[in-house]
Amino acid sequence: MTKIVIVGGVAGGASAAARARRMSESAQIIMLERGEFISFANCGLPYHIGGDIAAREALLLQTPESFKKRFDVEVRVFNEVMSIDAIHKTLRVKNLLTGDSYEETYDKLLLSPGAAPVKPPIPGINSPHVFTLRNIADMDAIIAALAAHKPQHVTVVGGGFIGLEMVEALHQRGIRISLLELAPQVMAPVDPEMANVLHRELVNKGVELRLNTGLTEVNSRDNMPSEPEATDVYDKPSHHHTALALTLSTGQTLITDMVILAIGVKPEVSLANSAGLVLGERGGIKVDAGMRTSDPDIYAVGDAVETPDFVTGNAALVPLAGPANRQGRIAADNMLGLDKQYRRTQATAICKLFDLAIASTGLNEKSLQRLQLPYEKVYVHTASHAGYYPGAHPVTLKLLFDPNNGKILGAQAVGMDGIDKRIDVLAVAQRAGMTVRDLQDLELSYAPPFGSARDVVNQAGMVATNVLDGDEQICHVDEVASPSAEQVVLDVRNPPELTNVGAFPQALNIPVDQLRQRLGELPKDKEILVACQVGLRGHVAYRLLRQHGFKVRNLTGGFKTFQMTMAKF
Amino acid sequence: MTKIVIVGGVAGGASAAARARRMSESAQIIMLERGEFISFANCGLPYHIGGDIAAREALLLQTPESFKKRFDVEVRVFNEVMSIDAIHKTLRVKNLLTGDSYEETYDKLLLSPGAAPVKPPIPGINSPHVFTLRNIADMDAIIAALAAHKPQHVTVVGGGFIGLEMVEALHQRGIRISLLELAPQVMAPVDPEMANVLHRELVNKGVELRLNTGLTEVNSRDNMPSEPEATDVYDKPSHHHTALALTLSTGQTLITDMVILAIGVKPEVSLANSAGLVLGERGGIKVDAGMRTSDPDIYAVGDAVETPDFVTGNAALVPLAGPANRQGRIAADNMLGLDKQYRRTQATAICKLFDLAIASTGLNEKSLQRLQLPYEKVYVHTASHAGYYPGAHPVTLKLLFDPNNGKILGAQAVGMDGIDKRIDVLAVAQRAGMTVRDLQDLELSYAPPFGSARDVVNQAGMVATNVLDGDEQICHVDEVASPSAEQVVLDVRNPPELTNVGAFPQALNIPVDQLRQRLGELPKDKEILVACQVGLRGHVAYRLLRQHGFKVRNLTGGFKTFQMTMAKF
Repeated sequence: MTKIVIVGGVAGGASAAARARRMSESAQIIMLERGEFISFANCGLPYHIGGDIAAREALLLQTPESFKKRFDVEVRVFNEVMSIDAIHKTLRVKNLLTGDSYEETYDKLLLSPGAAPVKPPIPGINSPHVFTLRNIADMDAIIAALAAHKPQHVTVVGGGFIGLEMVEALHQRGIRISLLELAPQVMAPVDPEMANVLHRELVNKGVELRLNTGLTEVNSRDNMPSEPEATDVYDKPSHHHTALALTLSTGQTLITDMVILAIGVKPEVSLANSAGLVLGERGGIKVDAGMRTSDPDIYAVGDAVETPDFVTGNAALVPLAGPANRQGRIAADNMLGLDKQYRRTQATAICKLFDLAIASTGLNEKSLQRLQLPYEKVYVHTASHAGYYPGAHPVTLKLLFDPNNGKILGAQAVGMDGIDKRIDVLAVAQRAGMTVRDLQDLELSYAPPFGSARDVVNQAGMVATNVLDGDEQICHVDEVASPSAEQVVLDVRNPPELTNVGAFPQALNIPVDQLRQRLGELPKDKEILVACQVGLRGHVAYRLLRQHGFKVRNLTGGFKTFQMTMAKF
Repeated sequence: MTKIVIVGGVAGGASAAARARRMSESAQIIMLERGEFISFANCGLPYHIGGDIAAREALLLQTPESFKKRFDVEVRVFNEVMSIDAIHKTLRVKNLLTGDSYEETYDKLLLSPGAAPVKPPIPGINSPHVFTLRNIADMDAIIAALAAHKPQHVTVVGGGFIGLEMVEALHQRGIRISLLELAPQVMAPVDPEMANVLHRELVNKGVELRLNTGLTEVNSRDNMPSEPEATDVYDKPSHHHTALALTLSTGQTLITDMVILAIGVKPEVSLANSAGLVLGERGGIKVDAGMRTSDPDIYAVGDAVETPDFVTGNAALVPLAGPANRQGRIAADNMLGLDKQYRRTQATAICKLFDLAIASTGLNEKSLQRLQLPYEKVYVHTASHAGYYPGAHPVTLKLLFDPNNGKILGAQAVGMDGIDKRIDVLAVAQRAGMTVRDLQDLELSYAPPFGSARDVVNQAGMVATNVLDGDEQICHVDEVASPSAEQVVLDVRNPPELTNVGAFPQALNIPVDQLRQRLGELPKDKEILVACQVGLRGHVAYRLLRQHGFKVRNLTGGFKTFQMTMAKF
């Protein structure tokens, strides 16, 4: 009989416990959770704050009792593991309710401690008006504060998943919001031009967006309201509360009622570290493909561990629910003597922001540049389903691939409809080792309400294959934005589009449908950077010009990508 | 300079013309279309009839003028090719407006004639109240007839894509509908139990569904309304129209006002056949992977050609827009001297029916049985996104795989949300040669509004892998419906579920959470067929019982699959 002890009862830990029991009726399984709840829906927390998920109970997926009945797992909540004695295979556990501590033994130990919100050591950070959001207790505290203090203005610090979801949640409650982000963009997994679509959405929704801006100090500040004698309003108590004065990295001061700190998470490694387990280069617990730590009887899964990046194999911290679940299952099998392997992580992820979704898989361009890996990129902006059927919205898709062999390196998409589907399709294609050439031939489901005979992903594959095969040479926004003296930008859209949508600086305009007749207006001695709205007409013009002997390249993604890239927030 | 003539200006032909021009400015390209329109949205026709697509113009994607301007393609509409002289490489073309005919030459010829609605030679089939739907003219005729005769009741014959879409379109116009289908199920690409979900939807929407019923005769019938003297209503002209009396294969008579005949399409091969081109075993034009017919200078694409099935390589007729588009592109390249290859066809397809979508890819179980290929199947019924986030609906997914190596053979899904995404993901996985084992590890985008940490497809992969690895032995509905004397059915749901949802016949009921305590109630000498609502609790029970020495199998898909399978319409 194997005695398995699991530290942490959420995603990875809970998956492991259930799987372990299914694989072994004889194992003794104990789950130690320092919080009140196990297996709660941590991804749902912002949506309960915002009101989309009405019932708090909906977030509590399992209870210690239900886990005991279904899986015969002994769950001890409010039980924190203080230390591990890996030599004697014992744990020192503290019951947080009684304060008592006791020793527990294990044959196999699984660490699933998760990751904690980063809380920088800046003055005032421990103010009772500064919140983070990791668990049910955090959520309850935020909801209680919203109810008690009725903040008019909240500052969200950090524009990652939780920051953006909290912006939406607070917006739904009618609260004014400032969003601070130290980086030049929100949503770090995507590239800046894709994030600009979110920036635009935030601004459109009335969120005060401050990029390149960090929080350096939190000061309480009595807002000293006017007394009734001054306002002649006697029947409504004046709103007397303590507001915060935030000092920003820009030197400015921001007055706010409440702060949500969401600048990221760090793996919870203190227990692993004090037990002498090896940590990785990114600061997470180091594990092998079997989810084993440096101690053969201790496994670790979830947000606390490092896993190899799908493309590079480099260690990465990927705090996502899907991988945690899969890792839990694998660790359970291996603790029971099987040999299952976790595969590399693509970090496929998605975030809803108001009417938009943004999603990504694989590496982004920033990473490819940092790693100095060869890459090419194409953009397409194609309707989410047949344009003539109601409800189609553009899908803006960025596809990164290896220019030598066409391998998919990564993909990002943003839009109002069908974003999850396209990134899922590309995530499968990337995992399968497909190239952009294969994307052309994917047979995806098509009827007018759902897609197009030539889907967004097919389209991206065709464009990228044209590039790979040399059937199209492309250029990028930076070149069109400031062409050299040896280049001329040719806009092949129709003149009203330039007026209504916007024009490239310094561009010649000949509509694509007049191009054959007006070739004489183009210089043969210069490189022509052709551009249209999304890149399709530009491709037609490119092929035409090239065959007529012009030196030419086409702006991938056209004016839409130009506009996204050049936007300033 | 290559002279390319393209016969047929819709999907495949139009794609080929545009691609050919992009690849060659010097080629002469002529497109001959016997109808009035090129490149129209034939998939959108039912939606204009139903009113979802308000503007008829929205369906006309290109005009001869736009094609000329953009691609320098000479389009001749109302020009029908009467014969091909493959020796001299000439065509006899008839101008349908003038009645004149002329000769046209070609270097390379592309046939993209499509497929025509099947019209069986039954008495009365040519009644002016019997319609088919293939093109704009057909659509216009149906709309005109609906306006003129204001039919109260329409009979749709055939429950395929067009038949079902027409049912929905007519229903949206407030018309009562009978749907006749000769087969025991609608929507032939999916298996009967999946189609039953559509049958239920049709009946719920008030459609009179008659399965196993064909149309054998159409008779006109004067409905002889009451005259004003009989009704005392003088100011409203009585509705005097000629109704139809349909004789059905069941011997019954059905009175209706109008018939939409949608029993399938057959490839248009008369031109190819008379030119001596080789036809395939399925009656379509035979082409090689380069879309070449038996004449090296004649190519063919689209609904008229046979392509190899993805799994078996057997010739198949797949009249879908996506393959037609891709084939057109490939044919264009090859006519210009390149060497591109069309890959096998999975026939991924989707159909919307009222609030439901149903989709499939690869082979179905009926085909696997007919071909006597080894297969196993699993069902999952999982929420389209996190259950605690509003708007989740069950996705019912059937996954067919090779029990020897886990290769994906086919998949079908039905439900109200996320059907296209799951089938697309599985279509990519199948095309990539993935196994069900790989499906477990797919990293799909997850946030509560979009998916689950363990997506439907992951879930299906896990279940199938359990089967493949022998971690679970499953049984199917037929066994649970009539267990042998050596078997006992064990329902592990909670008693209220049996009352509210329905119970298995002859089943013992022990809730899964009480099973460990009540093992004594189970026979050790019989095989236990365990079942729950969707298969998940059944799996927990299966693992528990097996480890306690019972002989046991779990019903894949649980009561939900049982119910779908056993339903009678």
